[in-house]
Amino acid sequence: MKVQVTGIGLYLPPQTETAEEIALKIGKSIEWVKGRTGVLERRVSDIDVDEMGAIAGKEALGNSGEPDLIINASGVPKQVIPDTSTFYQRLMGFEGIPSFSIHCTCLSFITAFNTASSLIQNKNYKRILIISSDRGTRGRNFDQPESAALLGDGAAAIVLEPIQKDGDSELIYYNMKTWPSGANLTEVRGGGTNRHPQDMETTLADNLFTMDGPAVYKIAIKKIYKMILKMLKSTGLKKEDIDWVVPHQASGKAVDAYISIGGFPKNKVINIVQEFGNCVAASVPMAFATAVKNGKINRGDIVLMIGTGAGLSAACALIKY
Amino acid sequence: MKVQVTGIGLYLPPQTETAEEIALKIGKSIEWVKGRTGVLERRVSDIDVDEMGAIAGKEALGNSGEPDLIINASGVPKQVIPDTSTFYQRLMGFEGIPSFSIHCTCLSFITAFNTASSLIQNKNYKRILIISSDRGTRGRNFDQPESAALLGDGAAAIVLEPIQKDGDSELIYYNMKTWPSGANLTEVRGGGTNRHPQDMETTLADNLFTMDGPAVYKIAIKKIYKMILKMLKSTGLKKEDIDWVVPHQASGKAVDAYISIGGFPKNKVINIVQEFGNCVAASVPMAFATAVKNGKINRGDIVLMIGTGAGLSAACALIKY
Repeated sequence: MKVQVTGIGLYLPPQTETAEEIALKIGKSIEWVKGRTGVLERRVSDIDVDEMGAIAGKEALGNSGEPDLIINASGVPKQVIPDTSTFYQRLMGFEGIPSFSIHCTCLSFITAFNTASSLIQNKNYKRILIISSDRGTRGRNFDQPESAALLGDGAAAIVLEPIQKDGDSELIYYNMKTWPSGANLTEVRGGGTNRHPQDMETTLADNLFTMDGPAVYKIAIKKIYKMILKMLKSTGLKKEDIDWVVPHQASGKAVDAYISIGGFPKNKVINIVQEFGNCVAASVPMAFATAVKNGKINRGDIVLMIGTGAGLSAACALIKY
Repeated sequence: MKVQVTGIGLYLPPQTETAEEIALKIGKSIEWVKGRTGVLERRVSDIDVDEMGAIAGKEALGNSGEPDLIINASGVPKQVIPDTSTFYQRLMGFEGIPSFSIHCTCLSFITAFNTASSLIQNKNYKRILIISSDRGTRGRNFDQPESAALLGDGAAAIVLEPIQKDGDSELIYYNMKTWPSGANLTEVRGGGTNRHPQDMETTLADNLFTMDGPAVYKIAIKKIYKMILKMLKSTGLKKEDIDWVVPHQASGKAVDAYISIGGFPKNKVINIVQEFGNCVAASVPMAFATAVKNGKINRGDIVLMIGTGAGLSAACALIKY
């Protein structure tokens, strides 16, 4: 589909929490935190997801005016109703712009990218702002040291528009799959009708993030490997045609697997997990935005955004930036 | 966009709660309940949203096989992570089907209809199952008698496919707008990062539905009136060309406004609010499914799905069924 990323925004909360600090909170050693998660530090936000996302959204828009659609593509909302896109819009000072959320946890951004591309291709919209903003540190369960030591906060945004002339940019390929046999491997069980605060049996832990990391990793590497092979076959491309791999920053081990198992060169795989941790749905656009800002990803580069998320789902989007 | 609804499913929980019963719970008279809300009875589900939605989804699919995409288009999820589409898929016995949620509260179904149509038009998918399932009675705040007396439970689903031949069916027109100045008029403030159970100041009421009904109504009728005029102008159609109006069943008064203010004949406006209450995002597809099942809406009919929701948003989709 003939779309181009015409704006990029990034919000990194100023406050850093180190492996040393989280080690104390979860009763583990610094070595355990670094070895198990690959996260050396993360950002902890004192403003909420809507404020974080609105800052990233404003940067992505720049001075080129209002979007005609705002999509929230985050893992966890500000609140149940209304959806977070409304709050982004309010904070950015707009009124009357259609807004909704696309949600599939860590893959929300990749899925929103494909959906927005489809809406642009069909001329439904001409300038779509996609914002991913997650504040995973609010949902940490310190009794589950591994996932608690992974999560970080951050937000990123892109503006998507039709291309100006053929060959400019493109969404070359997209694929997503969900295997509900893995639905209980990564959960926040509260927040909806399931474990409601009015139910006697609901605990605080039901409203915190829970993940069986090793089980997810074991399934995820197989699913992702197959997805990469299918993508290469469908597009007729070779691994060396892909300039950059932008993986979901699930953990140090998960990002490294694109090198050790996926077979991509280390210098082509964007890794921000050491510095920022797993920022849920914001991880992919944060990694993408960081790589564009520091000059790694350039116009015309072939970029593979890819990852797994709660569901269990896997998704990839191959774009010509 | 050239799409056709090829399957319809409906789940109505067997248990009914009458105006008499809700009157006792909220400390009001039966006359107050009937007069203020227009809801004579509603269904109260003892199974959760995923089970309700999976039943409707299975009926919509019939014997014609798996969908290639499942979209959850509900107002309130089962839980924060993973999104409800995963749980529908699990209960329907599928594995490996891409699944995600589209969320803009009461307008989730209308927005999902447009989004799915775009994905079909672009040949991304060929057989999309959209499920809306809401269990609003779980979020009733009996200290807010008006909204508590409105909400009901239900689920509905459709299958959307490309048309077989030109002229069959069509999504003729779609429009949506969001005005965040009305963001706080309809809320469930909990369930996300905003009012988290770990915060001392979070109350049970934060996890319940709150709405300033009269304020919403006052804004909504103006926004909807303008949206109808714009739709007629854009399509070149007249009011009498529209065979059926399928409004969001917000309240008796809100549905009646399509007659008294909108100017549509009473016998063309689908009204299920007396019998089922406001079922959040499930209201529109429930009203649509009911009207198809009881023989009102027939193939070739021009149907206007329309409503307002938390955000504050308004949306409409004009289809040739």
